[in-house]
Amino acid sequence: MCTCITDFLTYETTKSVVVKSWTIGIINRVVQLLIITYFVGWVFLNEKAYQVRDTAIESSVMTKVKGFGIYNNRVMDVADYVTPTQGASVFCIITKIITTDNQVQGHCPESEKRFTCTQDSNSEFCVYFLTSGHCSGILTGRCVSFNTTMKMCEIKGWCPAEIDTIKTTPMMEVENFTIFIKNSIRFPMFNYTKGNFLPTISSDYIKKCNFDMVNNTYCPIFKVGDVVRYAQQNFTKLADKGGIIGIKIGWLCDLDKSDDCNPSYSFTRLDAMSQKNAVSPGYNFRFAKYYKMENGTDYRTLVKAYAIRFDVLVNGNAGKFNMIPTLINMVAAFTSVGVGTVLCDIILLNFLKGAEQYKAKKFEEVKRTTFLLGPNLALYNPNPARSRKEKMTVKKT
Amino acid sequence: MCTCITDFLTYETTKSVVVKSWTIGIINRVVQLLIITYFVGWVFLNEKAYQVRDTAIESSVMTKVKGFGIYNNRVMDVADYVTPTQGASVFCIITKIITTDNQVQGHCPESEKRFTCTQDSNSEFCVYFLTSGHCSGILTGRCVSFNTTMKMCEIKGWCPAEIDTIKTTPMMEVENFTIFIKNSIRFPMFNYTKGNFLPTISSDYIKKCNFDMVNNTYCPIFKVGDVVRYAQQNFTKLADKGGIIGIKIGWLCDLDKSDDCNPSYSFTRLDAMSQKNAVSPGYNFRFAKYYKMENGTDYRTLVKAYAIRFDVLVNGNAGKFNMIPTLINMVAAFTSVGVGTVLCDIILLNFLKGAEQYKAKKFEEVKRTTFLLGPNLALYNPNPARSRKEKMTVKKT
Amino acid sequence: MCTCITDFLTYETTKSVVVKSWTIGIINRVVQLLIITYFVGWVFLNEKAYQVRDTAIESSVMTKVKGFGIYNNRVMDVADYVTPTQGASVFCIITKIITTDNQVQGHCPESEKRFTCTQDSNSEFCVYFLTSGHCSGILTGRCVSFNTTMKMCEIKGWCPAEIDTIKTTPMMEVENFTIFIKNSIRFPMFNYTKGNFLPTISSDYIKKCNFDMVNNTYCPIFKVGDVVRYAQQNFTKLADKGGIIGIKIGWLCDLDKSDDCNPSYSFTRLDAMSQKNAVSPGYNFRFAKYYKMENGTDYRTLVKAYAIRFDVLVNGNAGKFNMIPTLINMVAAFTSVGVGTVLCDIILLNFLKGAEQYKAKKFEEVKRTTFLLGPNLALYNPNPARSRKEKMTVKKT
Repeated sequence: MCTCITDFLTYETTKSVVVKSWTIGIINRVVQLLIITYFVGWVFLNEKAYQVRDTAIESSVMTKVKGFGIYNNRVMDVADYVTPTQGASVFCIITKIITTDNQVQGHCPESEKRFTCTQDSNSEFCVYFLTSGHCSGILTGRCVSFNTTMKMCEIKGWCPAEIDTIKTTPMMEVENFTIFIKNSIRFPMFNYTKGNFLPTISSDYIKKCNFDMVNNTYCPIFKVGDVVRYAQQNFTKLADKGGIIGIKIGWLCDLDKSDDCNPSYSFTRLDAMSQKNAVSPGYNFRFAKYYKMENGTDYRTLVKAYAIRFDVLVNGNAGKFNMIPTLINMVAAFTSVGVGTVLCDIILLNFLKGAEQYKAKKFEEVKRTTFLLGPNLALYNPNPARSRKEKMTVKKT
Repeated sequence: MCTCITDFLTYETTKSVVVKSWTIGIINRVVQLLIITYFVGWVFLNEKAYQVRDTAIESSVMTKVKGFGIYNNRVMDVADYVTPTQGASVFCIITKIITTDNQVQGHCPESEKRFTCTQDSNSEFCVYFLTSGHCSGILTGRCVSFNTTMKMCEIKGWCPAEIDTIKTTPMMEVENFTIFIKNSIRFPMFNYTKGNFLPTISSDYIKKCNFDMVNNTYCPIFKVGDVVRYAQQNFTKLADKGGIIGIKIGWLCDLDKSDDCNPSYSFTRLDAMSQKNAVSPGYNFRFAKYYKMENGTDYRTLVKAYAIRFDVLVNGNAGKFNMIPTLINMVAAFTSVGVGTVLCDIILLNFLKGAEQYKAKKFEEVKRTTFLLGPNLALYNPNPARSRKEKMTVKKT
Repeated sequence: MCTCITDFLTYETTKSVVVKSWTIGIINRVVQLLIITYFVGWVFLNEKAYQVRDTAIESSVMTKVKGFGIYNNRVMDVADYVTPTQGASVFCIITKIITTDNQVQGHCPESEKRFTCTQDSNSEFCVYFLTSGHCSGILTGRCVSFNTTMKMCEIKGWCPAEIDTIKTTPMMEVENFTIFIKNSIRFPMFNYTKGNFLPTISSDYIKKCNFDMVNNTYCPIFKVGDVVRYAQQNFTKLADKGGIIGIKIGWLCDLDKSDDCNPSYSFTRLDAMSQKNAVSPGYNFRFAKYYKMENGTDYRTLVKAYAIRFDVLVNGNAGKFNMIPTLINMVAAFTSVGVGTVLCDIILLNFLKGAEQYKAKKFEEVKRTTFLLGPNLALYNPNPARSRKEKMTVKKT
């Protein structure tokens, strides 16, 4: 049994050939240096491989818009121009509206020019429209008087029909509205919580500041005009057609350093396609406010709203020193140093003077004949293991 | 110092045993071929390990529903049946509504059969309901006349109470409604922007097309009926109970090829559980429209809406050639070829003829005795390093 | 050509030195044991490296709140206090409201104390407010009578101005409201669908149960008070100021085991920053209900709502046995066992008795002189390959 343990408690390592040559020595050390530099500089310092990383950021966003605009001689406040009203991470600021007041269910002529018809027998023309383009109701197929001179296809639905081709100017005051963003994040792996109101910032500052990219990078109040400009958009165009702006908050936190966890804001136009493509440019939607007459009849005000939608997108990750990734990456680094030999061997075996000498030292050959004789040889060497040991000791003498 | 540099500028490589045997040679080469095939075929071609990958896709979705339905003799348009109205990535198309008109705050009998009571002393029965099932208000505990023949528990709240057990048919026109989806994506790492209106598609085409899986795979207009069918659902059932359908847009982009970045649409029912489980099947919600009487009293219309909710889910990633992952993976491939020796060694040392010969060549043994003598030996060899070198040169002669 | 194939079909393996020493043998085996333990225990059992993992969970959430509250002598039901009404994954339960009834467009004095002015010439003071703090409209610069004794800055906008400083108590019944959550998930890679109504749960149970952390961990009905308590918040404070609570549903599924795929619920306050920071604590928002007078004039009720927002966040991943990761990780495990030699070599070469003997066996040196002579030697050895073989065979004799 003792032999068995002795046999088990052996250590097997590779036999090495040491080449003392300046040329290959320099190449070898340079390659090793490159590998070490890669691991120290890139893997450890840049990628922070010694840290465990939490990418499952938990975030909550609360927004509040402030400002007053004047549209159609009416003062518009937050409750009028922001939708949805809950102050979540996605909200629209309405910049332009086309209202159709006092719509009731009934029959009436369409209001757009392309629905102009000449006579009632023109019914096929009036039905065709059912399948394409905007229409305010179900076409009945009849052709009715729109005014004293024109006839239009008749629709069944909410009447009168919407006229959405009229030109209106957007509410330019939107440019000066401010968006206040409250963002709390949490890294559950480290139970680390932080908000975008940094502790270094006083509450007086927050009440008055306006975000800019140079001096007020941590101010949580954004002027709409600034946001649009940072996203490289033209405010007038955007307000006219509508669009979607992304406000990105990035949190790249190194929790090994005490205060290296700050938000960084960036801005892009998310519906970038709208700029390139002529089909359905911009952003608009329809909604209605419902009213009731004394007699119980429903009527509504249809609103076609052009809006700038803001999407507050939060992403980030946090790293903190941890033993397991540190060990794994150090082992990887150490073993990778050996990878350099692959390159050096190629050089040494092929391009260097004395390559043959080197080959002779590096490679030891087991002849095929020996193998073919294999079992026979065993006859002459009844205990090959013993004879091997003898050979070895011979060499050592 | 020169010796020191000379000692440093050495190159150490493993000493190898070369076995010239067809059997093991074939095994060795086949294993190496398999490893190379794995790396070339799977890692490089399939997984595209030579690319750096951006998974942080930025996306914006804008939706617009079109179509007219007739429900309770009224024409319903987008403003009536879509909620929320903002045209974001999540929206509901209402298919069936149960309205309770002219509710005012007050006291009134419940309207469902299970609240039927016999007399006022039955108050315990009426209070019990507070804790389970749907109820239209706070039970007062009293039992009041519902009509001439029946008595019901009295509630305090919005009166009259809702009767949500009545059967109504869903608005079947929904099947023909169209959903228009505008999706812009951006890969911030490469600053690459694209939209689901491909440049190869004309605006005339977009106005008229309808998505299908065969001929119009890039048309951004979807018929509700098609979407439901692609999600393997029965429209009539879905419209009746309500449900949640996911429209997934996948962007798998290879930015090394100029135009290999196209959306692929797929459809699933997201609340799949609803089909299996009898508890609370489908999707419905309640909302109210508020009105005011001349005298200032509030009243409302309560709506219980059954709806199909559509969630537009965008995911994707983009890859582009980059030196760093290419190098790392090539090194990994080269060094992994060596892994084959582990397998070959096991075969060679155990299953092949002449294994003993091979063992004798591969393993050189350092006897334990030598080690035990260790320090003593040092006495006889005052400069072991020199004597080692001598031994080596002796071998070489 | 046969020679060529013979030359190709060789097998090259490293020559090894076997050290039979108890000390280094034990170190070697212990290091190997540690590495194997790491791979078996951590990589395979804990990290389940033999599985392929789907992290792209598809989820749909449907929520329904139940309960009646009494606020300002009115019974509030779901349609009154939940917003948005669609029953999606994010919803607010309004706990406190400040209503300003019957607002019409016009001119009127501000209502907050800080706007108190003394005379009309005080206009600069009145204009200054435009830029900071809450204001109900556009300041005209005039100073007008608020009541018989006080004068206030005049605004243009919705009149009368909101008084949001009045103290009101929140609707305490919210604590007993229940939130019903229906969550379906799907792992597209495995086409595996599950819901949070586990099959083991009867529909009777679901109708009556209430979630708790001990006995009813799978009940999908949550009391608001419990959720708030599990998130370690004080309900009264939270209801008073408003806040955002996250209900997290985690799905960690091992699809190799038949029923190891269950939801786990956890609760946190997401806007944790609100507690620490005095600036803009809590969560509130404003919205309006619009009405029309007989004569067509618009008027509205402005509501400032304090609410608890609930965000239902779903995450998770599923693993299933797959050949490719199993093979890759097994190969990694086998080859990593060899990494132990690096450590053992360091010990053996530096700290052990007989290190010199060991060095002599492990390292074989190729002298620099040999290399410098390189090409000359070739003259004496016209066929180095042959002579190498001879040398080898000599050694073997």
